[in-house]
Formats: sequence, C-alpha cells, structure tokens
Amino acid sequence: MLTGMARPLVLTLGEPAGIGPDVTLAAWLQRAQHDLPPFYIRGDAACLTRRAKVLGLDVRVAEVGADEAAPAFAHALPVVPTGRIATAAPGQPDESSAAAAIASIEHAVADVREHRAAAVVTNPIAKSVLYKAGFHHPGHTEFLAELAKRDGVVPQPVMMLWCPSLAVVPVTIHVSLRDAIAQLSTELIVSTARIVVQDLRSRFGIAQPRLALAGLNPHAGEDGSLGREDRAIVAPAVEILRGEGVDARGPLPADTMFHAAARKTYDCALGMYHDQALIPIKTIAFDEGVNVTLGLPFVRTSPDHGTAFDIAGTGRADPSSLIAALKLAARMASAAPT
Amino acid sequence: MLTGMARPLVLTLGEPAGIGPDVTLAAWLQRAQHDLPPFYIRGDAACLTRRAKVLGLDVRVAEVGADEAAPAFAHALPVVPTGRIATAAPGQPDESSAAAAIASIEHAVADVREHRAAAVVTNPIAKSVLYKAGFHHPGHTEFLAELAKRDGVVPQPVMMLWCPSLAVVPVTIHVSLRDAIAQLSTELIVSTARIVVQDLRSRFGIAQPRLALAGLNPHAGEDGSLGREDRAIVAPAVEILRGEGVDARGPLPADTMFHAAARKTYDCALGMYHDQALIPIKTIAFDEGVNVTLGLPFVRTSPDHGTAFDIAGTGRADPSSLIAALKLAARMASAAPT
Repeated sequence: MLTGMARPLVLTLGEPAGIGPDVTLAAWLQRAQHDLPPFYIRGDAACLTRRAKVLGLDVRVAEVGADEAAPAFAHALPVVPTGRIATAAPGQPDESSAAAAIASIEHAVADVREHRAAAVVTNPIAKSVLYKAGFHHPGHTEFLAELAKRDGVVPQPVMMLWCPSLAVVPVTIHVSLRDAIAQLSTELIVSTARIVVQDLRSRFGIAQPRLALAGLNPHAGEDGSLGREDRAIVAPAVEILRGEGVDARGPLPADTMFHAAARKTYDCALGMYHDQALIPIKTIAFDEGVNVTLGLPFVRTSPDHGTAFDIAGTGRADPSSLIAALKLAARMASAAPT
Repeated sequence: MLTGMARPLVLTLGEPAGIGPDVTLAAWLQRAQHDLPPFYIRGDAACLTRRAKVLGLDVRVAEVGADEAAPAFAHALPVVPTGRIATAAPGQPDESSAAAAIASIEHAVADVREHRAAAVVTNPIAKSVLYKAGFHHPGHTEFLAELAKRDGVVPQPVMMLWCPSLAVVPVTIHVSLRDAIAQLSTELIVSTARIVVQDLRSRFGIAQPRLALAGLNPHAGEDGSLGREDRAIVAPAVEILRGEGVDARGPLPADTMFHAAARKTYDCALGMYHDQALIPIKTIAFDEGVNVTLGLPFVRTSPDHGTAFDIAGTGRADPSSLIAALKLAARMASAAPT
C-alpha cells in the first residue's frame, strides 16, 4: 500500500482534552498489527506523554523534526512541536485547548503543502471550545478549505464518508431537513458530483467512477406523484453529468440503493441530505467509517467520531476509525492519478 | 413456533401475473427446510397449476375447503377457491387479474375474522391494474383496513418493516419529503406509537416495548440549531408517551441509531419519514424483510417486494421474503398477549 509514499502522514492533535490523544496512542501501539503507514503528530509531546501515563500505556514519545518522523516511527510516537503547549486534562478543555488545536491544524496543512507530509489526518476538535477562543469558521473542514486557499480562491470542500464496502457523499449537510430541500439545486448536485468524480480519479485511482444519485423523495418521487424535486432538480443533474461523460445514474429510490448487491454497482452514492447519506454507512460500519474531505489540494481524512470528553483518558476509546483513516490517507496519497 | 396455532395461515393470490404464484410455489416446496407453518392460498387452483408447469416445478395443487387445508399441506399446496378464476399469463395482467386479486383479499380477511385462518399473508398486488378495474382505495393496506371496519370505524393501520435484528415504523409514509415535514405532528407520532406499543405487546409478546424515536433533522436538530421540529414536535411526543408509561427515547440522531449495538437497545425504531425508516432495514436485510401491518384486528404480514412482472414465470423470483412473512405471521398469531 505504501509503495511510492516515502513521506509520513501528519496527524493533528485535535482537542487535547478529548479522545484524540487516546486513539493516537492506541493506533501507534497497533502499528505493526495493522501495517500502519508512518505518521507523526503536530502538537505537544508532553501532552501525549501525560496521556500515556494516565492510560498506563508504554509508549515512548519522541520530539523530532518532520524529516526525522518516518525513521523514528518504528520505535517511538513522533511529535513535531508547534510551539503551543496543551495542558488540558482529559475531559477538561482549558484555555490552552483552542490555541493548541488550531496551531496543530495550521502546521499540518503547511507540512503537507510544503511536501514534508504526504497527507493530513485530523483528530476531532470541539467547535464550542474553539468558538470561545475566537475561532470564526463554521467547522473543521471549512477551516481547512480556508487554509487551502490559493490566489484568493477557497476550494469547495466535499464531505465523503467511506468504508471498504460503501462511499457516500451528502449534497447538503449540516442544515435542517427543511433547509436541505430549499438548498438543493441542480447546480449544487453537479458541482458536488464533479469534485467527487475528480477525486475518485486522482485520489482513488478509479478511471471511470460510477455515481449513484439518490432521489430526494420516497421511491425517487414515483414519477412525480411523491414530490416534484426528483424530476425538476435531480434528474437534470444526472443528465448534465452524463453529458460530460460521467457514469451517473439516478434519481434512484434511496431505500433500495444500499444493500450489499446494490453497493457493488457504484463507486460512490450521493445522498441529497445528511441522514440519507449517513444512515446507511453508519448502519453497516459504525466504528470503521472514515470521514474524507474531497476537493482540497491535499488528502485529508479523519476518524468519524467526536471528542467524546466523557471517555477521554479512560482507555475506552476505540481507535478503529483513526486506524482506518490513517490507512485510507496513505492509500489516497499514493494513488496514481488516472 | 406453532404451539397453540392449530389454524393454518391464509395467503392471498396477489396479482396473478406477478411473482406471487412463483414465490408461493417455491415457499411450499421449501416448507420442510424452513419448518413453515401450514398455509393455503385463497384463489384459483388452475392458476397455480399452470404456473408450476411454466416453472417446471413438481407441485401437487389441491383444491380444498379451509378446514381441510392444514392436513393437506404436507402433501399438496392447498387452494381454497374464491370462485374467481385468474387467467393472466406471467408478466401479462389481463381482465381477470383485478377481480381475482380483490376476491382473494376479501375472502382471506373473512377467513381470518371467522376463525378459519390464524393470520393473513398477502402476496403483492399491482395497484395500477386494480385502479383500471375501479378499485378506489389508496393501497393494499388501506383496503385491508376498510375490510376490518367494525361499527363503521376504520382502524388506523401502521406499517412496520421487520427483520430479525430490526423493526422500523415510518410515521409518515408515501408522501413527498416536503409533505412529510408538513404532516408531521405530535399527535400523529403519539397515535402511531400507541399502536406500535399495543401490537408489540399483543402480537410480539413484549411486555414493556422499548421505542426509539428518530429526530427529523440531522443530529436530531442539535439543540435547535439544525431545525425546530425536533424540539417542537418530536420531543413533546416522547414526553407524552413517557407520561403514559411507555419506554420511549428520542429524538435521537437518526444516523447513529441503526448500527448493530444500537439496534439491541430498542424493540422498534420510529422514523419520521419513509427513507429514514426504510434505508436502514433494507440496507441490512434486503431479501428477508417483512412488511407487517399493525393496528388491524388480525395479523397481516407481507413479503417486502412488488409484483416484479419482468421476472414472473422465469424461476428467478426469490421466496425469502415470503418465507420470512409466513414464519413471522405464525409467530405473531401464536404470541401470548401480555
């Protein structure tokens, strides 16, 4: 899997009071078992060392430069310092949390853009903690898009949830269901699908990606008797995409798109709203789902869970999703664009 | 499973040109393998005999009275005639289709209400065929509710999709997503949930049913920032139900409700709209899902597929869902009410 990927992955610290340090330490300990690619943390070595002690884990943490991270990885968890310390105790974000989390993201993006790292994997942050410190972006992904700005143009990030048997993209995301219907447009579906196709080609090595587009309404509107949007909005988007040579199908009845045999007929499903896309993947792959941001000038993956303050420092956090995110980031970074 | 159920199940003919006869013959042939309860068809013996010949199946069809059906079942597929013949060839509904399908449903309901049969299992009908013949009900289930009318009161039927690891009920069903939001009310959620609770007790033998109610919006509205309906409509319904002693939880984020561990924490999930309830169950149990109608004065189950005219008479129809529907109907009919 790592053929051609000499550079390590950079993993952000995330919210230092959350489970990011826990799953990072656990993933590093399982590096051989899961054949993990070399990675380093952008953060504060002391924070990781303290968490290892709380968890009773035998992990050597090595403060290194980015170029020393890959060789160090076999014997220690490499940390490349950001200059911001993180003092927060598990479950207790403090005034150091926001600055440490933000600095880690900024440095990680700089590392990947300046070719010190192959891809960015992000640990979960707590938006409410960042907002109190003056963070003004709607979320983690929008902040990454802002950092990826070039010549004043901010790329359109597209959220994909991925597991080995299914990839889904919600066309509208964190808005009410009512607003999702209002926001849905042929243009939004097409612009989202174009980014999906481009990244399936360049990051997943799929020469002719097959897209399945869900209908908004039950039974994809059943010829218009169950809602007009599928004919008026979704079907024209499929036509435009097909006119561009994209292997796109839809609008399809969403309830019959996601069983095992159906999943084999496409490379990515586009849901028209959050739950339509996320219910199927979280039903079949709750612990191993990976959040992938398409549309950025670098690879970014993330475990598909939050900071889980309630279990930080307890040893109960499951590293499966982070492990899957690290493996997928390495695969994406080394994919030969087609 | 059949302890206490001496009466056979009555299975309707469904659309005679569809796959109903195919899956019926296949299920009967697999009766020993699946330990199926005795059942008989209300219909036309010649129709079944012809289809067996088309399919090259060695099935003896026996025209019997309802009281002879159970003993006959071991050696022949019992058919209790309705007096309406069904001449339609596979995939070719004709002028006999509607009358034969409707008569079968009417006789089946009479059989169960007059204690000749333990429960009704319905084969799929083609609404478009029935409409041409003057059928004026919105669907199969509404027709059954009309036939179940007593003292002029039509019961409120509630659709449940069931598989061994998940039961779901959509609160709104065959309406556009926009209309589903408009129709959703605290009253509708509560009246639906009451029927679910009553039938989980009386038909499934669950003394204290646990209900999980999905939020309408992503993340169940995230404290109101992603839509008002979860606080204004769903949460009050949960409160009313809890006030009545029902073990109800919600509104819950729909995307994290349906993975294997979550499914073990409730007996039935209520989705606020069609796809929210049907995506998870069809994702995990596409071929073995059973459609159950709650709220009727008798047990009714149905395979969760349509007439599939394109494969009728080809031998490609999968009887798994009918087999599951027959087994569940027997279980429900013999459940000790609690």
